[in-house]
Parts: sequence; structure tokens; C-alpha cells
Amino acid sequence: APGVPRGRGCAGSREVVPTCERYAVRRLPFARLADGDVAFFERLMPGRVVSGEEEVKPFNVDWLKSVRGCSQLVLKPQTTAEVSQVLRYCHERNLAVNPQGGNTGLVGGSVPVFDEIILSTALMNQIISFDKVSGILVCQAGCVLERLNEYLEEQGFIMPLDLGAKGSCHIGGNVATNAGGLRLLRYGSLRGTVLGLEVVLADGSALDCLTSLRKDNTGYDLKQLFIGSEGTLGVITAVSILCPQKPKAVNLAFLGCQSFAKVLETFTTCRAMLGEILSAYEFMDEKCMELVERHLKLSSPVTDSPFYVLIETSGSNSTHDEEKLNNFLEQAMASGLVTDGTVLWGLRERITEALTHEGYVYKYDISLPVGKLYDLVTDVRARLGQSAKNVVGYGHLGDGNLHLNITAESYSHSLLDAIEPFVYEWTARCSGSISAEHGLGFKKKQFIEYSKPREAVALMQQFKAMLDPKGILNPYKTLPSAP
Amino acid sequence: APGVPRGRGCAGSREVVPTCERYAVRRLPFARLADGDVAFFERLMPGRVVSGEEEVKPFNVDWLKSVRGCSQLVLKPQTTAEVSQVLRYCHERNLAVNPQGGNTGLVGGSVPVFDEIILSTALMNQIISFDKVSGILVCQAGCVLERLNEYLEEQGFIMPLDLGAKGSCHIGGNVATNAGGLRLLRYGSLRGTVLGLEVVLADGSALDCLTSLRKDNTGYDLKQLFIGSEGTLGVITAVSILCPQKPKAVNLAFLGCQSFAKVLETFTTCRAMLGEILSAYEFMDEKCMELVERHLKLSSPVTDSPFYVLIETSGSNSTHDEEKLNNFLEQAMASGLVTDGTVLWGLRERITEALTHEGYVYKYDISLPVGKLYDLVTDVRARLGQSAKNVVGYGHLGDGNLHLNITAESYSHSLLDAIEPFVYEWTARCSGSISAEHGLGFKKKQFIEYSKPREAVALMQQFKAMLDPKGILNPYKTLPSAP
Repeated sequence: APGVPRGRGCAGSREVVPTCERYAVRRLPFARLADGDVAFFERLMPGRVVSGEEEVKPFNVDWLKSVRGCSQLVLKPQTTAEVSQVLRYCHERNLAVNPQGGNTGLVGGSVPVFDEIILSTALMNQIISFDKVSGILVCQAGCVLERLNEYLEEQGFIMPLDLGAKGSCHIGGNVATNAGGLRLLRYGSLRGTVLGLEVVLADGSALDCLTSLRKDNTGYDLKQLFIGSEGTLGVITAVSILCPQKPKAVNLAFLGCQSFAKVLETFTTCRAMLGEILSAYEFMDEKCMELVERHLKLSSPVTDSPFYVLIETSGSNSTHDEEKLNNFLEQAMASGLVTDGTVLWGLRERITEALTHEGYVYKYDISLPVGKLYDLVTDVRARLGQSAKNVVGYGHLGDGNLHLNITAESYSHSLLDAIEPFVYEWTARCSGSISAEHGLGFKKKQFIEYSKPREAVALMQQFKAMLDPKGILNPYKTLPSAP
Repeated sequence: APGVPRGRGCAGSREVVPTCERYAVRRLPFARLADGDVAFFERLMPGRVVSGEEEVKPFNVDWLKSVRGCSQLVLKPQTTAEVSQVLRYCHERNLAVNPQGGNTGLVGGSVPVFDEIILSTALMNQIISFDKVSGILVCQAGCVLERLNEYLEEQGFIMPLDLGAKGSCHIGGNVATNAGGLRLLRYGSLRGTVLGLEVVLADGSALDCLTSLRKDNTGYDLKQLFIGSEGTLGVITAVSILCPQKPKAVNLAFLGCQSFAKVLETFTTCRAMLGEILSAYEFMDEKCMELVERHLKLSSPVTDSPFYVLIETSGSNSTHDEEKLNNFLEQAMASGLVTDGTVLWGLRERITEALTHEGYVYKYDISLPVGKLYDLVTDVRARLGQSAKNVVGYGHLGDGNLHLNITAESYSHSLLDAIEPFVYEWTARCSGSISAEHGLGFKKKQFIEYSKPREAVALMQQFKAMLDPKGILNPYKTLPSAP
């Protein structure tokens, strides 16, 4: 899709306060980078070691410009063997490592907190194989999602996931963060579509679970532990993934709804009537639309409504699909617009970008029972009153996933205190998740117990200690610091 | 579906040689059951402790009558708290425990090898909640799959999995073995549909990961480790699972194919033309059909062919679905029969049952690249010649999953030696899996390295040691014994 955020550089140009200052974190006793270390890496991968301050800078700052690390070194391996050698060396030397894909994460998981060495997958971008009968793609971790999708489309297939950051994000990062995105409703999560992984563990040993089978019940499914572990248990170096056939017909409908209750009612009708061809049911409130119109000069194709719904169908027979969609629209008696253009997805996908133009963005990515999804937005809006510039809600309604965003001119501790832990407590009361698809990274790790019982967190810490006893992999992330 | 195997008692009445004798296994140094132990359990769950030899017997023998344990005690808890107390006691006392669901497993994972206490989920059969908006079902582990499906159908939903043993198998056992079955092609594996689990660990502590959210990226996905762990890492006590809407139209087509190449070609056409409504593509060879006709008096609705294919569509619009199916049949130029009866599924589902009438069955459940799926059957048939009574192949072609079955009048070491490791080596050469959906249980555990690298097996053993340091949970199963 045109106009999708392309990663770094979109979020204005103000200077970012170093994370360790803003959050008063204490550095763990890892070794400091020495000249001998840089020399070692230079010998291992000549020309692919980045150490100039200016060149390293973009790798230290996240896409939102909300966190900033102080790494002095970026390594760009091309092979799994190189990743192995880097980690074996770092493990031996007790040097901390920050694995990084496209650096499009939203919770501060993809950039260092202190001086961790950045291990970038940018040059691990080879497609290893694609089988047209089974639809199974095997590729290196650094392949950009959009490139993979383009490659597959030429062969009549698509990637099972899609997200706004597709132009920059790496498939390895997608898997490491268990990215959800826009096609989950139809093709399911990466836990089902990822068939195999190759992972390098903290001590440099490679774990080859890169099978290309739909079914394999021989022992524990180790790869699942690395899916969504945000680089804290191992570095994903290659991915085997099941790709669906490219739908022959894709249709979009854009509707205005007069209330959130109407959004929900329309969803129920929609699921019943569109059934197996429904591939997305996204909603956004009028505030989102205002921001997209103001900052990106995109205009709503439907007249003013408090809520908007974007419905996508993907099917194998255009006549049948259009008939289903028209029957649905008639039944829903909605004032909708049906089109097959990509303009509508632009409206939805670029909300994140539009928000960054408003100043500092407090981002929340919440799973809730679908009926309560918008109550959280209303409650937060009432609570914050004039202290917030905007409180907006949008997201993947079909998955029960709300993106709640609050903007202000700049970051302020007092506004943060008004939002947190209020949002987390509200979510926990509804048995929701405080991070539906973004992960915990650096910014959310202290809040894990709002969504997971203490025993589960303790067990996670045992896994971490077992797989990475020195804690060198993406430290300060995902799991809470000891109290 | 009528006529589906209902669990125990179908496989003839011959006596089964105790597993420890046939396989010359050595008992591990667990404590022996003492009178005081039985008294403790009687106090804990009066009337739900089974200890008479005859009453315990059906829990000691698997459905295939291929393995037999010597347990003296079956416990039937009703609550998670009771499971916790049982395990805490057994852990303390160093008593081994064999968790058991419907006892329909095919690899000897569900019955004891020696005198392990059998912990049956038979009385943990309560539905906890069902949400009609989200389609999320929460229930205890001992609910019978078919009962759950009936319950859901009344509300317009279905279970995302279906298998021949549905009349007996428990949902907890399904999850513990990561059961695949007949709907995987359409609704994906349990790794995607299971949203939450409650598990009791070896030391009796309960782990509550019973969330009902489609998306939750807060920390590592611990529940995945228990899915497919075959009761060796914890006892699943409750399950939260995402259920699809009941399709409004289900159509079946049954085709004869003149060669396996034709079976594959038809599959490709079928996927393209039926697309999103294709819910099963099952194949069987003529030998299977002969056995089903001979032993179960079912007759093929299609005239003699070397191969048969069963195609199922499930969709939301019967007119559209029938049109798609008819277009496909025209294009495939196949001599097919289209019907919406359940007779056809009976033919397919009862192959397992028909095979048991032939004597001893050597069962193999293999994942392979789909193009090579039947070559294994041909090669094994040629290799065994007259020493096997039947060599048949059938399975979930759409998932690349072959069920290879070899029958003989009775068990023989020499026939086994002719089959194994030949089948496993053949599979490993094609990077297949030696257990696609049945798991490893007791019978296949020594062969794990044909499908998993040594490093992966070592890591699995570390997980086992971490979660069950005394090794009391389902010992002698899933992971290979130390060499």
C-alpha cells in the first residue's frame, strides 16, 4: 500500500532523552566494549561493523523517538554462523547484546537501554526457498515483510501477516514479537503459521528447528518459546512460514456507524453473512479520522460519523464475494461505500503516523472482551479532560484488540501518572491483556503482572535463566526487574 | 457422526503382554504404592479412588490393545484443587503419575508402563463458560470432544477440531497431545485455537494461564510448552479455546482417482477453486476401502479405483458453495459423487477400526512433502512383500500427513525389525516428521532424533528437568531414555 510509514525518521526531529536518564534505570554489570572487541568483530565481518557516533545513532533511537540507547557498535552479520560467533564471543566476554530487526517496535524493545551491542539483521535478507505446492517460505530473519509479500504475490501467494510498518519491519522481528497486524482475523497468529525457526542461543549455539511441515508432534514445540520472546531468549536467524494463496478477489467496504453499539452489531451481522471471506474488521473513532485528515491530507470517503468501520473480504470467487458483501450491506442497512481501492487501507494504516504529528504519544495496545472495547477510551477521555490533547481509539475489533492513544505536546510525568496504572488496572479488571500485540519491550515490562499471575512470571524468569544464564540477550526488556 | 469408534473395547479381546516385559524396560526408582497412600487418596476424594484389579484393568490397556501397564490405582479428581493435592502428595512421596484422558492415544502415551498411579480426568467434565459473541469456550479438561461439539452446535458454533475418537477423547488429552484431526486444514492447529490453559505442575502448584483473549503478548507464551507435551510437564486441568461458527453449508464430494499423481493434481485444482471453503482433503488407497468394506460392511459409493479422495467444504452460503464445488468437479473432470450425508465420513473415520480386525497393527503417522507422500507406502509394501498381511496408506493429504498402517496376524519382532528403522530413515531423508499428530508416547520416544536435532532434544530434557525435577509425570514417555 502506498504511503505506509517506512520506519525511522517519520516522527519529527526533536532530540530524545536517553532512556537510562528518563527512567532512572541502573546498568547491569556487563563488560564495557573495549578496542580489542571491535577489532575482533572487524576481523569477523570486515566492513559490516558500524561504530561512528552518527552512523550508530539511528539504531539507538526507536521509530516513535520515545526511547534512546547509547550503543557504540552495530554489527551486521550475513549468516547464522556469524551470529553464532558474535554471541559466543559476547557470552564469553559478558557483553550485552540488543538484537534489532527493522526497528519499528512501539514499546522500546528494539533499541538498547545502555551500551548494548546492536546485532542488526539488516543484511540477513535472503530467501532460502519457496515451495509453490505447499506455500511454505523459508527465509533469513532480516527479510523485509513487504519484500517477501511482493516476492510471493508474483507466485500467487501472500504473507499471512500484514502491518503498517511492512516497508521496514523484518520477518525475524515480526516473529520475535509475535506481531499480529491486519490479517490475523483471517489467517490466524504466527503461532500457527510459523512452521519452523532457526535460533542462535545466548552462548552462540545454533538450534535448528527450521522444519517445513504443517504437522510435527515429535517432542516439545521449542520454537514457540522464541515466538514473542522479544529477543530475550535467543536470536532468530531464519523462519519457515506457511503462506496462503493470494485471494482472487479482495473487496473493501467503509462504513460510518452512529454508535459503538452499532459497530458491534454490524460485526455480528458481518461475521454471519461474510463468514469465511471476512479478512479484516477494523474500527476507528472520529478523532482518528480528524488527525489523519489534518496531518496527512487524506479525506474520509464517508460523511461525518462518530465511528468508522473498514471491512475487507478476501476470497476465491469475485462474483460470490461481491454478492455476499452486497447482501451484508443491505442487511446492515448501513450507509457504506464499497470499493476495491487501497485508499481506505491508507486511512487505517496511517493513523499511527498521523498521531506522531501531534507531539508525544502515549500508546496502549489492549485486548478486551469486545463489548467493553470502547468503554476504556470513554473512561480515559473523561478522566484526563483537558490535560490530554487527544484521546483516540481504533484497532482490530475482530480480534478484540484496541489501540488507545493519548497525545500531548510533550512528555510529562504527571500525565503519565494520570494514565498509568489506571489503564492497566481497568484492563486487569476485565481480564484483558495490557499488550495484545506490541509486546512488553522496555516500556511495559513492569506491568506484566496486570495480565499474568506471579507464578507465570516466575516460570518465565526460570526459562530466561536457563537459556541465558548471564542475561546478555536484550537486557532490561520483557520481564520485570527484580523488585 | 454415527459409527465412530467409542474408545476402549473395540480392538478384540486377546490378552496384552505387559509393556515392561515386551519392551524390556527398567523401572525407575519411584516409591511403591503403600496402604497409607491409598488411605490418603480415599480421604481426599472418597468414592473416586479405583483400586480393584478388574476395575483398574481398562485404564491399564490402550485402545489398540498394544501396550499394558500394571497400575493398581486410578484417581478421579473433580477439581483443579484436587489435582493439585494429588500431585503435591505424589511429588513429596516420589510416586509416579500417569495422567489419562479418554485413553484413545495410539502411541502408548496414555497408559502406565509400570505401576504409575493413573490420574484420570473422567470426572472433570464441566463446561465453565461459553461466550457467543467471541466464540470462546472455557471448560474442564475431561470434557469429551463430541459432547463439547454437540453443546456448541446448539449455539451455532463447532469445535475447531474433530477426530475419529471424538466419542471418547477428552479435550485435555487432545491439547496435551496437540491432536490434529480432520478440521486442521480449515481451522488451523490447537497452537492457534487454544487461547489459555490451566495446568498443575509436578509439585502440585497450579499455573493459571486460562485467559480468553485472541491476542496477548505479555511475556513468554507458557501454555505452548504444555500443548503437545503429552502429560510429561504438567497436568492440563482446564482449556480456553476459540470455536468457529457452525458453517451454514457443508458439502462432501467423494472421488475415485486413477493414480496418486491424479490425487495431487486434483488437490491443486481443488485448492484454487474451492479456496476458503475447503475444509478437508482426505485420501485413502484401495486397500483401506477393502478393509472397511470387509469388516464394517460399508460400501464404497464410487466404483473401483486405486485411490479415493474425500473433499469437504464448509461455508456460509449454500448456493455459492455448491456452485464452487460443481465448477471444481467439472474442471477436475473427475467421476465424483457429491452428497451431504455423513456416510462418507464414516468410511474415512472408521479405517482405524477396520484395521484392528486384521490382527496386530503397526501404525505410522508421518509428515512428508506432499509429493512424496505415497512413495513411502509403495516402498514399504515392496520391502515387506508377503511378510505383512496389509500395507495401507491414507490420511490428511491437505496437511502433508500420511497414516501408514501395516497389519499382521500377531506382533512379531522380526516384522518390526523389517519396518523400523526403515520407515524412520526414509522419513528423515525427506526431512519429514516421524509423528505428525499422534505424538511420541511410549512407542516412538526412542526415535525422536530422526526428526529433531540432538541439541533440540537436549533442550527438551532441560525443560523436563526444570519443570519436573523428580520425573514423576508420565515417566518413560516422549523423551528418550538416557543412553
